[in-house]
Amino acid sequence: MRLTEIRIAGFGGQGVILAAMVIGKAVSIFQRDHATMTQNFGPESRGGACSAQVVLSGSPILYPYVTRPDILVAMSQEAYTRFVPELKEGGLLLVEQDLVRLTGLPEGIRVHGVPATRLAEELGRKMVLNVVMVGFFASVTGLVDEQALRRAVEASVPPAYRELNLKAFQKGFEYGTTSLPLTEESEAVPELRGD
Amino acid sequence: MRLTEIRIAGFGGQGVILAAMVIGKAVSIFQRDHATMTQNFGPESRGGACSAQVVLSGSPILYPYVTRPDILVAMSQEAYTRFVPELKEGGLLLVEQDLVRLTGLPEGIRVHGVPATRLAEELGRKMVLNVVMVGFFASVTGLVDEQALRRAVEASVPPAYRELNLKAFQKGFEYGTTSLPLTEESEAVPELRGD
Repeated sequence: MRLTEIRIAGFGGQGVILAAMVIGKAVSIFQRDHATMTQNFGPESRGGACSAQVVLSGSPILYPYVTRPDILVAMSQEAYTRFVPELKEGGLLLVEQDLVRLTGLPEGIRVHGVPATRLAEELGRKMVLNVVMVGFFASVTGLVDEQALRRAVEASVPPAYRELNLKAFQKGFEYGTTSLPLTEESEAVPELRGD
Repeated sequence: MRLTEIRIAGFGGQGVILAAMVIGKAVSIFQRDHATMTQNFGPESRGGACSAQVVLSGSPILYPYVTRPDILVAMSQEAYTRFVPELKEGGLLLVEQDLVRLTGLPEGIRVHGVPATRLAEELGRKMVLNVVMVGFFASVTGLVDEQALRRAVEASVPPAYRELNLKAFQKGFEYGTTSLPLTEESEAVPELRGD
């Protein structure tokens, strides 16, 4: 696979790190390509913000630090505002659409949104919103083998939560299969729409 | 604090990643310096080997990738063999002394050993060997504030396991306070000694 830099960002408690680990594991352990995951514990983590960087590649990765991601997964407004300027031109932005308003969206960015928290709540456990997001990532990007991701989900959560997390993955995946691109005008936060 | 590069390596199931996260969190969240943690999911992770890199610094970290660690924590023979050649001259090596034999130890490396698995077993839970190792790291290096590390341990494990993990930390810490440097001749693996 082609070298792909991904940043996943949100606030503490959303499971940002686990989402990054699932993608990294899927690619390296189950898909047999290469992956690194870097986590900053800077001052930002004190404020409750949380961010992880994943680099995927068909060959060993020499420089694991993401500076211009190809893909940004923004699970909070703060994550969007802070990291969207770093996205590569022509990059892909995935947002938790109930939590992110697309203010000042740069040109040439493709955006898809999913109400990950709401979908997780429908499963009775808000905590699986991260795995909903991973499922959504899977179907929108087509970058990582779907079965490899499912196996990485299974390998990353306690046995008692496997079924729940696989359902969360499926829910996000299915939502992604019919997802249409968002624009700044279409606005990701429904409550803020004028209609 | 001065820029310090650390690699922690062992095999899957030893809790290498959690050990790295505890040190990173202690420094950044509770000690208010900076830290990054990078995890490779390369082909090595398929073989059961596991390695994490932590960079600690008094100022923001621009390049989080460890190439020549100041400190190597080796929890398996494979980890020792693979990563000891990368240690900086004058670097510090901490080993799980029942699992690592100091074959071909480079000149100028200071070595300390702890029977982390055995000490964890004395607490009834082998799984806390990683936190024993973190406690040992704390007292031997004096690099990270001891209370910050205890708080990071508490913040990194499920509530039901807090007390056990704090005991594990304490056990490793106390072992480190009386630790004498090892040499290749003194050999870290007692069963292999000629006496």
